[in-house]
Amino acid sequence: MSLDARIAARLKRDGNGLVPAIVQQHDTGEVLMLAWMDDEALHRTLTTGRATYWSRSRGEYWVKGDTSGHVQHVKAVSLDCDGDTVLLKVDQVGAACHTGDRTCFDADPLTPVQGGVTAARAER
Amino acid sequence: MSLDARIAARLKRDGNGLVPAIVQQHDTGEVLMLAWMDDEALHRTLTTGRATYWSRSRGEYWVKGDTSGHVQHVKAVSLDCDGDTVLLKVDQVGAACHTGDRTCFDADPLTPVQGGVTAARAER
Repeated sequence: MSLDARIAARLKRDGNGLVPAIVQQHDTGEVLMLAWMDDEALHRTLTTGRATYWSRSRGEYWVKGDTSGHVQHVKAVSLDCDGDTVLLKVDQVGAACHTGDRTCFDADPLTPVQGGVTAARAER
Repeated sequence: MSLDARIAARLKRDGNGLVPAIVQQHDTGEVLMLAWMDDEALHRTLTTGRATYWSRSRGEYWVKGDTSGHVQHVKAVSLDCDGDTVLLKVDQVGAACHTGDRTCFDADPLTPVQGGVTAARAER
């Protein structure tokens, strides 16, 4: 079994055969992380309901939570208008980030350099 | 002026010098789109408060809304744990997608192939 041909036909992969997958907590809307998928990872994600990625650093498939227990149960998957990005809505068990943070974006808010986003950040 | 050296030191760019930027509506949590930034685009985004990207197809900087009017006012910017993805929280004027959809992910929900996400999708 491989990725449904109708989906594969819509997918626009980068030079390494990958598309970025944005992962979002389905109910709170938190953006948890970004990971990468090839056709097979997307196929496994759609058919198993468990978020599955391609690890660029390790060069292998990676079922989120298999080692950490921090599983992502897939609620919905959509492709963007260009077919080159996937949005995954999941129910995240525990921390999404390998650092133990809930999301991969918690630790590093960027300091505005010249006040461009100062006013906006003040409301956070 | 170029990107703050402390931020530049944390940024991990792909082979083309780019990082993906996830764009999220700051109050509703909707994921609007994904675009790409180089150092200069991130610098301009941080210092002007207007979301600015690098267009891979046109090979030029692109201030979101300059032609469409569908401006993104930047509320917060953060880097992920690996420094290879940016999350932009914005206030989106009008449609984020060039198709006229509110988000780039509205048009193409993927049909689950073998029921992997069927139960989850039923709750949408």
